Amino acid sequence: MRQYLLDSSFTGEQKTLILTDKESQYLTKVLRLKVGDRLLGRDRTGKTWLLTLEQIGKNNCILSVSPLGEDQVEVATDNLPSYKGSYPRIFLYQCLCKGKKNETIVRQATEIGVEEITFVQSKFCVKDYSHKKDSSLGPQKERLESQIKEAIQQSGSPIPTHLSEEILDLDDIPRHWDNKGLFIFFHQNARAQQQSLPQLLSTLQPDTPIAMLIGSEGGLSDDECAFLEDSGFRAVMLKGNILRSETAAIYALSTIQVLLTEAQK
Amino acid sequence: MRQYLLDSSFTGEQKTLILTDKESQYLTKVLRLKVGDRLLGRDRTGKTWLLTLEQIGKNNCILSVSPLGEDQVEVATDNLPSYKGSYPRIFLYQCLCKGKKNETIVRQATEIGVEEITFVQSKFCVKDYSHKKDSSLGPQKERLESQIKEAIQQSGSPIPTHLSEEILDLDDIPRHWDNKGLFIFFHQNARAQQQSLPQLLSTLQPDTPIAMLIGSEGGLSDDECAFLEDSGFRAVMLKGNILRSETAAIYALSTIQVLLTEAQK
Repeated sequence: MRQYLLDSSFTGEQKTLILTDKESQYLTKVLRLKVGDRLLGRDRTGKTWLLTLEQIGKNNCILSVSPLGEDQVEVATDNLPSYKGSYPRIFLYQCLCKGKKNETIVRQATEIGVEEITFVQSKFCVKDYSHKKDSSLGPQKERLESQIKEAIQQSGSPIPTHLSEEILDLDDIPRHWDNKGLFIFFHQNARAQQQSLPQLLSTLQPDTPIAMLIGSEGGLSDDECAFLEDSGFRAVMLKGNILRSETAAIYALSTIQVLLTEAQK
Repeated sequence: MRQYLLDSSFTGEQKTLILTDKESQYLTKVLRLKVGDRLLGRDRTGKTWLLTLEQIGKNNCILSVSPLGEDQVEVATDNLPSYKGSYPRIFLYQCLCKGKKNETIVRQATEIGVEEITFVQSKFCVKDYSHKKDSSLGPQKERLESQIKEAIQQSGSPIPTHLSEEILDLDDIPRHWDNKGLFIFFHQNARAQQQSLPQLLSTLQPDTPIAMLIGSEGGLSDDECAFLEDSGFRAVMLKGNILRSETAAIYALSTIQVLLTEAQK
């Protein structure tokens, strides 16, 4: 574990944290931390904290929390990433796949450092969630959240990836995105108006939020593509094979991150 | 299925093929092809063939094989990739991970279009294969081969990905690679001599073979990095988080492919 991800209830004002059950066991039994041991904490805004193990009980443990000086990153129990530069702000809109695939996508996208993940119901999704009253992720949310937590703790990612509560209907994406920046959707066939990914990214101001939409196993329909284009979103077809949805998500995400951090300097 | 991958025993001289058991059932029961239906075949050299279903038996079926004209690609049962350009020649050297992860890497690397995959035994591999007499993949080979076959058939990849029989010791990589082109190893910390990936790739002649080595869950040791550098291989640290081995493989592969097909035109 490179860092401990603090619960979303942490406001920055607490001086001590009580961890129970699994969380406590992970620190004391799996990582075998002792009283006095320190670890790096990261809150949901991305800020880092110094955590010190103060007391170990039977099913709980107590940590003290203090602000972390710039020179104290070595309290991480494992090496943090050497790279300390900025990360492109990437927002993933992912059409729902079958259960386990969603978890893989969430875990890998978090590792890489995506800012927000929102699941989308589209025409060719294998499972139809649109009949559900509340259109929330329901019981799957907890499993996805635990994938995010584990990925942040293991990768040392400085980006506290956020999972949207709601499953969006594809039609609702423009409202949800609200013109925050560049919106790209990846498609397996060429569209009439199309630029290459490097061209699209080269025009961006630094720190512009970038959204990417990945279709489900069945891709996006022509009507959906036309709707997205009418909403001002940009189609991109990459020069390669037709990838499965979970491979496409990581491929596109890797590509955007690398083009922005490596190629354009 | 976008194309049917012909068995490695196919030489191009056979006029008919007899498929049995699972293979036959897949075409006749799952895809429900009827006598007279045609499909696209691809052999292990990457060449395409026109296959026609001639006869359906109880546990087998017979296909006729004929050369495919340029205008006949529409015989594919599903759309082929729109992209018809060249693919960078990428060779993946992957340090062995735990069982299922190897399968995921092989499947995704094949989808993307890697030319050859060779597994490597390195110091921090969780499982030690070096004591094994024959250093072959053994029973895992069959599972990995079936991942490759399925990935080629589903992605429509024109690259007939090859899996090396042997598990290489890291020390044997230079002999195996034999200076065929650029060899890059990805590392999570900066090394003394280091260029960025776009810099390294920008110097290449088209069609130069590129090898990439990805460490196991534990990464590469300092000694291993020094050995690889002494062998003329180039270290690359990407500007991002520390990724799990299976994420790193797909991240690096996507990145190399995109930088060569998209960014440098």
